[in-house]
Amino acid sequence: MNAHPGYVVGVDYGTLSGRAVVVRVSDGAELGTAVHEYAHAVLERALPSGRRLPPDWALQVPQDYVDVLRVAVPKALAASGVPAEEVVGLSTDFTACTVLPVLADGTPLCELPGLEDRPHAYVKLWKHHAAQGQADRINALAHARGERWISRYGGKLSSEWALAKALQLLEEDPELYARTERWVEAADWVVWRLTGEETRNECTAGYKEVYQDGAFPSRDYLRALHPDLVDLFDAKVAGRLLPLGALAGRLTAEAAAWTGLPEGIAVAAGNVDAHVTVPAACAIEPGQLVAIMGTSTCHVMNGEALAEVPGMCGVVHGGITPGLWGYEAGQSGVGDIFGWFVQHGTPPYVHEEAAARGVSVHELLSRQAAEQPVGAHGLVALDWHNGNRSVLVNHELSGLVLGLTTTTQPHEVYRALLEATAFGTRRIVQAFEESGVPVREIVVAGGLLKNAFLLQMYADVTQRPLSVIGSEQGPALGSAIHAAVAAGAYPDVRAASAAMGRVRRAVYVPDEGRAAAYDALYAEYERLHDHFGKADDMMLRLRALRRRAVAQ
Amino acid sequence: MNAHPGYVVGVDYGTLSGRAVVVRVSDGAELGTAVHEYAHAVLERALPSGRRLPPDWALQVPQDYVDVLRVAVPKALAASGVPAEEVVGLSTDFTACTVLPVLADGTPLCELPGLEDRPHAYVKLWKHHAAQGQADRINALAHARGERWISRYGGKLSSEWALAKALQLLEEDPELYARTERWVEAADWVVWRLTGEETRNECTAGYKEVYQDGAFPSRDYLRALHPDLVDLFDAKVAGRLLPLGALAGRLTAEAAAWTGLPEGIAVAAGNVDAHVTVPAACAIEPGQLVAIMGTSTCHVMNGEALAEVPGMCGVVHGGITPGLWGYEAGQSGVGDIFGWFVQHGTPPYVHEEAAARGVSVHELLSRQAAEQPVGAHGLVALDWHNGNRSVLVNHELSGLVLGLTTTTQPHEVYRALLEATAFGTRRIVQAFEESGVPVREIVVAGGLLKNAFLLQMYADVTQRPLSVIGSEQGPALGSAIHAAVAAGAYPDVRAASAAMGRVRRAVYVPDEGRAAAYDALYAEYERLHDHFGKADDMMLRLRALRRRAVAQ
Repeated sequence: MNAHPGYVVGVDYGTLSGRAVVVRVSDGAELGTAVHEYAHAVLERALPSGRRLPPDWALQVPQDYVDVLRVAVPKALAASGVPAEEVVGLSTDFTACTVLPVLADGTPLCELPGLEDRPHAYVKLWKHHAAQGQADRINALAHARGERWISRYGGKLSSEWALAKALQLLEEDPELYARTERWVEAADWVVWRLTGEETRNECTAGYKEVYQDGAFPSRDYLRALHPDLVDLFDAKVAGRLLPLGALAGRLTAEAAAWTGLPEGIAVAAGNVDAHVTVPAACAIEPGQLVAIMGTSTCHVMNGEALAEVPGMCGVVHGGITPGLWGYEAGQSGVGDIFGWFVQHGTPPYVHEEAAARGVSVHELLSRQAAEQPVGAHGLVALDWHNGNRSVLVNHELSGLVLGLTTTTQPHEVYRALLEATAFGTRRIVQAFEESGVPVREIVVAGGLLKNAFLLQMYADVTQRPLSVIGSEQGPALGSAIHAAVAAGAYPDVRAASAAMGRVRRAVYVPDEGRAAAYDALYAEYERLHDHFGKADDMMLRLRALRRRAVAQ
Repeated sequence: MNAHPGYVVGVDYGTLSGRAVVVRVSDGAELGTAVHEYAHAVLERALPSGRRLPPDWALQVPQDYVDVLRVAVPKALAASGVPAEEVVGLSTDFTACTVLPVLADGTPLCELPGLEDRPHAYVKLWKHHAAQGQADRINALAHARGERWISRYGGKLSSEWALAKALQLLEEDPELYARTERWVEAADWVVWRLTGEETRNECTAGYKEVYQDGAFPSRDYLRALHPDLVDLFDAKVAGRLLPLGALAGRLTAEAAAWTGLPEGIAVAAGNVDAHVTVPAACAIEPGQLVAIMGTSTCHVMNGEALAEVPGMCGVVHGGITPGLWGYEAGQSGVGDIFGWFVQHGTPPYVHEEAAARGVSVHELLSRQAAEQPVGAHGLVALDWHNGNRSVLVNHELSGLVLGLTTTTQPHEVYRALLEATAFGTRRIVQAFEESGVPVREIVVAGGLLKNAFLLQMYADVTQRPLSVIGSEQGPALGSAIHAAVAAGAYPDVRAASAAMGRVRRAVYVPDEGRAAAYDALYAEYERLHDHFGKADDMMLRLRALRRRAVAQ
């Protein structure tokens, strides 16, 4: 007799596609999966109408999210061979802060006749970076007024978050702001579409909407920022706030028709892709830092107590797991940097050799780099090609390579870039520890899992054992775990994680000799970090020069 | 009636080959040229016997120099159509400090039976870099004893120079040092072979053998350096010292047979390739800085008065032109850096586009870079990939690129590297001017003349007009000018230069807008220069880490 009968579906909404996975409740076995790419991908240059967008914009089309439910879920179900009637719950996770303006009934403004040509009517994707000016004013005012919440975010709210994006909407299209009845995370909007009920989740409310100690930023603060923003949170954001894994509602007949799942099954509260990975990786305990390593890296970790760690993205009670303080940090560029180097900085002879050996350029460069002892390239790099999310929180910083000679070879630069990201992770771990938040183990998930040389380097550099998630679709499995909790199959996320999550412990352990050698290189990285991150604003001045040059 | 009848031959000894040019005395017209490559090129890995060499060695075989006389001179003469009997003089120039141990009759030790397998018996080429330890001790002792001459060399003698190379010979093969009867620059040795008479020239004696104010370094200093070195200069170096353009002797019957030139014609004193270019470029006047731009750049300039410019290679009275103070500075990597980037840092799509357009990769990248306004790449680089010759005088420094993002493109990095070398030249100009040595005009010679984008950039960055030498073989033409003086066709080098040299004045003039924009970028370059060149020894520590890593 199975104590935990049935199946659940997890749906992970990424930047370019959504993935559905059908999972067995009893043991987390992944039985079927399917991916659906968004028809409109990311709108960066123009709206579907052809209207051009300014630089740094990144929008999406909400119907694309619904199509994932209509296409990927039935496909995954068919692939799994699981009978639909045995599915007991559904949960979703999303990129964040990805946020859209809707009517009180949930209709996106961009779907209203006459608004299809208004950029601000669309979903603003997490990487919409056109609200930096707003973010700067948000932060300056918060510090000037001594707002207590600002230190929960390492001292700076990001331009990516809901407040900066709302202020940009208000300032640039006030009429549309007035028509915005609800300002909602896509994570919550998709749950709304599934259940017919509007809810908010503690994760995005905390990390992205500045909900702390039971309150959003005050009306006084908002009024000082912009008089018309005064009731943003009261009128457009606040709602029924749910802990993670809570039952948000029941699957509507309409959504049952989309997905092919039974009407009335449990739908869990919304969640964020990085955070939902924690239970999938069996890394709920304080001190277990989960690094989701892909084009960028997101670090999430539970802590026993509240600490205000400088330069972190945020700390939110219940933000990852109900009852614990959830910490979030990140590196803006990781796999992105390696990919850029392979595409734009690697010469023909390397590509030819990789082709001749039948391996990818990444693999060839990693193999060649692995043959060198630590420090033999004479290089040190800064991994800020996409800016620095933690601990400097500055998207205007940039990358650097130092130690080049006319004998430097491509695999040596590649290795220096890999090392720079490892040093960046160590710097974040160090910030946690200096603030009294211990990091005992690093658990890795994401697309960079496949590079064993990189992961061994991370173990050596951080001098911590590296565990590896046992699933290739961590967020979707994490969503499935939350669905099982919402469906009542487990009493809480911790119990569901223990049964359904998968991790291989200490797959990579630090090598003493290499760790010592990396210490010397890390000392140089840290000097560069502090020099260009704090002492000398050269990188910011170069950005300004660049803007002026391009504007001429 | 031609007031200056006849022809002269100039022979330029480079790193890999020697070039002969037949020149008309009356107007400097180049009538025929031929190149002969050294059979042994540079011995960097092994002796001709197969014996391996340690890292950083660079040797040559003296017979290769004689072969240039036997092959290239007759070929050039034949190509010119000039009857041999109308040739009135011959002059040579050489790389420096390129130095060899010989017997009192001029026989190279490496040609003695039984010594062919002794590395120290060969010519040490200018880029033999295995005597850094000796140079460090030479400099430390000079400062400790307060030797006045050290400030003539910017405070540091190079490991490339004759004293460090002699000390290395003494310490590593004392028996061979004892058998060294004369320690002679190749520039003087080849003149010795042509005339049968041993002479020394004021250029190499001053820049490379530390001859200042009528004396070499004292016996006390040498004894303190190494007891057995005490009579190095007295016994093995000092000799008949000639000003540049002086008659060193007459062509011997043997050398006449080699070259096909008339026995008894004038042979001028030895000279150095960079310095000899000054009269060829009509740049003898104080304030005319000649930049010989190729794989590296050498800067030579006459001044009215003695000034001790920090970080210069040297200042020598009569070192370039008799009667004036000759200043020398340099950049260790210029074309070398661009070549390295094209070969090792430029992706396949750039090579494919260049091939499709039928241009070189250098040309494609230059064209693409030229389309951007100044500062639009957001980058700044340091041009120290081969170390820094002036003004920091440190071969352990290394290159840096800052401002990289995942949108940075290859032509942007290429441009930043070009700019870095232009900034390096500006930094040298600035050092001259800060020491009261004005630089009014820059006259360019060398292989990089072909890149108009680069030269315009140098004009914009240095904010000075750029003149261009009118010959593609500046050093050989310069030698021919000295030959004409030695033959008595002109009263002095100045008069010969005026008649025979060629320059196009102010071919590139600074653009005000770009010059102002470059000022802002140069300010960042200078900050990096001073930070990594003076304030933080990071690059030196990385070199040390590298040596330790590779030695393990």
